Amino acid sequence: MRVSERIEGLTPGGDDGWGIFHRARALEAQGLPILNLTIGEHDIRTDPAILDAMHRAARAGATGYAAIPGIAPLRDAIAARLTEATGVPTARDNVLVTPGGQAALFAAHMIALDPGDRGLMIDPYYATYPGTIRAAGGIAVPVTAPAETGFLPRAADLRAAAPGARSLLVNTPNNPTGAVYPVDTLETIAAVCHDHDLWLISDEVYDTQVWQGAHVSPRALPGMGDRTLVVGSLSKSHAMTGSRLGWLVGPAEAIRHAVLLATHITYGVPGYIQDAGLFALAQGPAFEAGIAAPFARRRAAALARLDGHPALRAVPSGGAMYLMLDIRATGLSGTAFAEALLDEAHIAVMPGESFGTAAAGHVRIALTLPDEAFAEAFARLVSFAEARVAARHTDA
Amino acid sequence: MRVSERIEGLTPGGDDGWGIFHRARALEAQGLPILNLTIGEHDIRTDPAILDAMHRAARAGATGYAAIPGIAPLRDAIAARLTEATGVPTARDNVLVTPGGQAALFAAHMIALDPGDRGLMIDPYYATYPGTIRAAGGIAVPVTAPAETGFLPRAADLRAAAPGARSLLVNTPNNPTGAVYPVDTLETIAAVCHDHDLWLISDEVYDTQVWQGAHVSPRALPGMGDRTLVVGSLSKSHAMTGSRLGWLVGPAEAIRHAVLLATHITYGVPGYIQDAGLFALAQGPAFEAGIAAPFARRRAAALARLDGHPALRAVPSGGAMYLMLDIRATGLSGTAFAEALLDEAHIAVMPGESFGTAAAGHVRIALTLPDEAFAEAFARLVSFAEARVAARHTDA
Repeated sequence: MRVSERIEGLTPGGDDGWGIFHRARALEAQGLPILNLTIGEHDIRTDPAILDAMHRAARAGATGYAAIPGIAPLRDAIAARLTEATGVPTARDNVLVTPGGQAALFAAHMIALDPGDRGLMIDPYYATYPGTIRAAGGIAVPVTAPAETGFLPRAADLRAAAPGARSLLVNTPNNPTGAVYPVDTLETIAAVCHDHDLWLISDEVYDTQVWQGAHVSPRALPGMGDRTLVVGSLSKSHAMTGSRLGWLVGPAEAIRHAVLLATHITYGVPGYIQDAGLFALAQGPAFEAGIAAPFARRRAAALARLDGHPALRAVPSGGAMYLMLDIRATGLSGTAFAEALLDEAHIAVMPGESFGTAAAGHVRIALTLPDEAFAEAFARLVSFAEARVAARHTDA
Repeated sequence: MRVSERIEGLTPGGDDGWGIFHRARALEAQGLPILNLTIGEHDIRTDPAILDAMHRAARAGATGYAAIPGIAPLRDAIAARLTEATGVPTARDNVLVTPGGQAALFAAHMIALDPGDRGLMIDPYYATYPGTIRAAGGIAVPVTAPAETGFLPRAADLRAAAPGARSLLVNTPNNPTGAVYPVDTLETIAAVCHDHDLWLISDEVYDTQVWQGAHVSPRALPGMGDRTLVVGSLSKSHAMTGSRLGWLVGPAEAIRHAVLLATHITYGVPGYIQDAGLFALAQGPAFEAGIAAPFARRRAAALARLDGHPALRAVPSGGAMYLMLDIRATGLSGTAFAEALLDEAHIAVMPGESFGTAAAGHVRIALTLPDEAFAEAFARLVSFAEARVAARHTDA
């Protein structure tokens, strides 16, 4: 039987960008010890106190259908969090609780796009972005944020792509680049959204992982509250990736429609997970800082090692659990570098080419291995790059 | 900001069919004791043993991203269950684990439909069906299954609607009517799907609640394995409604696309919930029969009361946690009956008109109140109907 053209076209060419990851898994299954720097997930599990709160809620009876928009106290807690973070008054009816940030990304594009509409996204982009836009029936249009600007989008590129588009998806702090968009970049984005009547879809799931500068939500900029849909999640901030608990925040009318959509797509989020999320949010900033601390520590160690290094350059970045490395001095593409690194040094990294075209000649490393393993993996990666540069100069 | 036309058109007219339900909730909030016969959810909570299994899995570390298609042992258990139920050999790659049956319904329509395609559904239908088809960009086309046939669809109506359609959604045992489709009805459906090259989307979430006859999955009919997408869930069979754990089973190629879709819409299902589901499935048929037993008991009591009754007629039906009552002898519409019953007797039921046009003049009662409360509510409902019929004859 023929499947729909839309679903067949979700990931054209069949390449989901995770080739190295899958190959690393296969090598591991053969018994080869691989140090895996591809995974955007903590090396710790969800805090047992959160799991115990979940179990208490479940045993107390929170096992029936939960309210589709989310339980009231969690919506209120998320609203309070966003009010504090953005300065934009946010109430319960501005919040939809979703089964993870990915579901919120999809809902946002279903709000913004009709079939055939153009949805803009910044390249380099998180692997699911183009497929998410296509799943909503839209045409995914990349806007290059080049390595030269530290992977920040430029006004001219945004303005060239905007005419006829309906939405712009941005992500700060950024996966894969680690860029934290400064206010002037956000103001440029806001101006383009105003001038071309675009929805701004702002993926802020890394907002608790900022190492330099400060996270500013574009929703906080003048006039942007009415056209911004914020995607959030407890996955990264609270090490709750597997619990699939996120949210979409936006204008009440858009959220009202998103609730109806949720009724027809997922029919709510488990109540006991929402209770666990409420408990997690109540742990406060110190808890969240504790979750983020290992990434800051590993990032600092890696940057210190690379300072002035001839073979590898860390892209200046300020947040998220990743580091983007410029490996062009090796003469290799990101993909060739990653393939050879996996085969020769048993280290898995993501080629920049997995995230679009703008990060070609780069690789992304996740700061998600325990300190010692991370140091070992990073040292091997540096040695590998040095050897490649040396060989290249010998050849030349 | 303008939302998309698709999302604005999900539930045209803004009526989601749940007006009585919402009004009952509002009256309850005012302190009025309402006996609620609208809710398709057990009067028991999820078994504590299942919740404990979930907690053990979570504490043991199943809190990270789970494999998007579902964890292998759960996919295998679902495959074995479907193999046994349908006789169609079913393997792991025929199974996608979804966050609830509703997500599987949506995925099935995303597989079958491109924007603008026609998706058929049987009227009376479960409230989310038309919006689910519209969320997938399709045109929801009802095919009437009239009261005269016991709400079974007829070949002529199916054949009239099929040309140009891409899918047909059926639900047996049926919500709201309780109909269990006999084999000859299923054979008619299969023939229409063959002749018009339709995907058959078979919602079988009530397959453990059969009181008369036997549940047959249309996937088991000759040649239907390749064009049938089965929607299943632990919600009704294991009293796990709030846990949002379901599945889509179909041809491996369709499921491969559904996995990619899941990557972009929900990004998997919590691993600890999947472990709980695996534990639940292992409890076996006696456990499932125990979950279903109260509905059989209440149904039998209600049917005994109505035998030969002049004011109310139970639609002959064989399954699911509902009873459809023909109230046309009262001279009222289903909606008028339900409104007056709520105001005068404080009983909430669903008007047949909430489920399309074919069940007009009927009301659906859920068998989901504890026995004593159910008996009380049902007695009041019968008295109310008797009084209406008597008044009508006095008037005449």
